[in-house]
Amino acid sequence: MKLLRYGQTGAERPGILDRDGAIRDLSGVIRDIDGSALTPQRLRELQGLKVETLPLVQGAPRLGPCVARPGKFLCIGLNYADHAAETGAAIPSEPIIFMKATSALSGPNDAVIQPRGSTKLDWEVELAFVIGTECRYVDEAAGAAAIAGYFVCNDVSERAFQLERGGQWDKGKGCDSFGPIGPWLVTADEVGDVSNLGMWLEVNGRRYQDGSTRTMIFKPAFLVSYLSQFMSLQPGDIVTTGTPPGVGLGQKPPVYLKVGDEMRLGIQGLGEQRQKVIAYG
Amino acid sequence: MKLLRYGQTGAERPGILDRDGAIRDLSGVIRDIDGSALTPQRLRELQGLKVETLPLVQGAPRLGPCVARPGKFLCIGLNYADHAAETGAAIPSEPIIFMKATSALSGPNDAVIQPRGSTKLDWEVELAFVIGTECRYVDEAAGAAAIAGYFVCNDVSERAFQLERGGQWDKGKGCDSFGPIGPWLVTADEVGDVSNLGMWLEVNGRRYQDGSTRTMIFKPAFLVSYLSQFMSLQPGDIVTTGTPPGVGLGQKPPVYLKVGDEMRLGIQGLGEQRQKVIAYG
Repeated sequence: MKLLRYGQTGAERPGILDRDGAIRDLSGVIRDIDGSALTPQRLRELQGLKVETLPLVQGAPRLGPCVARPGKFLCIGLNYADHAAETGAAIPSEPIIFMKATSALSGPNDAVIQPRGSTKLDWEVELAFVIGTECRYVDEAAGAAAIAGYFVCNDVSERAFQLERGGQWDKGKGCDSFGPIGPWLVTADEVGDVSNLGMWLEVNGRRYQDGSTRTMIFKPAFLVSYLSQFMSLQPGDIVTTGTPPGVGLGQKPPVYLKVGDEMRLGIQGLGEQRQKVIAYG
Repeated sequence: MKLLRYGQTGAERPGILDRDGAIRDLSGVIRDIDGSALTPQRLRELQGLKVETLPLVQGAPRLGPCVARPGKFLCIGLNYADHAAETGAAIPSEPIIFMKATSALSGPNDAVIQPRGSTKLDWEVELAFVIGTECRYVDEAAGAAAIAGYFVCNDVSERAFQLERGGQWDKGKGCDSFGPIGPWLVTADEVGDVSNLGMWLEVNGRRYQDGSTRTMIFKPAFLVSYLSQFMSLQPGDIVTTGTPPGVGLGQKPPVYLKVGDEMRLGIQGLGEQRQKVIAYG
């Protein structure tokens, strides 16, 4: 299933893609695409629906973030062998965890807002997943089973805020609009193997990132198990798993986003995003 | 007003302390003590209540975290001049931001759970506040006005997870039970000046922290203004503002918590917490 949220910011409704790629309205079935809708039982119920009988959504509405109200928005740093090399960092011996503010979430095609004072606005195409089953101290098999679905995330980052303003990365990762997710959540059963998915990101038509989850160091099932040693995970929690090479910081010389730039990014089987950079206010 | 949540975990009800310090049930008036209840208008409405006419809560129920479902749980690092000195760190030139997982929240007297593999479990008495008004790029005056109330937070930390496991502090700050808040939220109008509040923490009756918000480097109003440059703040968001000297890491040699230890901590005018350390599972 491909689950999504459509409509104006703050008033999104749940939807599902039908066989023809059209949006069907799910709001008669579930309240929203959130933790309560993503448990194994609720997903099984949704799988029993006759999608073609649901109301067809007319037009091309805005898409919202494909998961609503996550309790946590966890991020893994330097999780691609070739990206770690690009930034000059050693390959981590265990996952680096940081967090994005949940208020950073935005729709897959919403504008990315350059914060005031930003000089080093950067991109990161990432494979993200959402938890469907509460986890504490789970092994990898249970970790894999706890993943409800996958989607594209642009881990938008302000490198000066992240690295030059006092020590912890969270400061440059959680600005409003720094977390576009979607266009839709693809349920884990439909994605299958995530260990060799092509992923790419272009700015103004130039391809900067052209990687694959093949070079991911710590895989999603391991990450769930690992994270669950440090905190419990709840249905609806989002984890974004790091980026392959080609970020702006890694260019020689570095290249950063400016107002008017347009990003396009995607992951094989998970769809595409497109964001224009605008100034705040 | 002193607002609180009482009852079993996950089934807490909103309450308010009356003049005699007894709990009155607020569940006929508001659904919960969360972002929607903490806006200036809702607080004004609560202030108009005749507290003595609300149902008296019998017995001594468990207290839950005094704020429900925050979108963010933000933390400020090394924010006391004397604590920075104790850890050997320079005084930060601007606030250090990190985050606790919202799943770390717990009641003021709930057990602190030592995670598996933990060897350096530590304490931090802190002044925390909750946002009542959405903020973006606000100045200090608006920052002060956006604070709905204050409470005690124990920023429980696992120093090995925080500092020796791969680079970002969040890993050692967000374990389940690492965020006791309360016993109650004291509304900003009732707290008044927060620049000279005594604060203390004892382990097994020995006083380790005995400080004052007087040595806080970046004050709450400034912190709201500062944070709002990096992310929007929503009603219900929690900010905990750093700890004075006397943490376990700062002892010579360091002292860490073990199963069976009991912490007591408090801040002048904001009440006390008491937590026993237990093993996971």
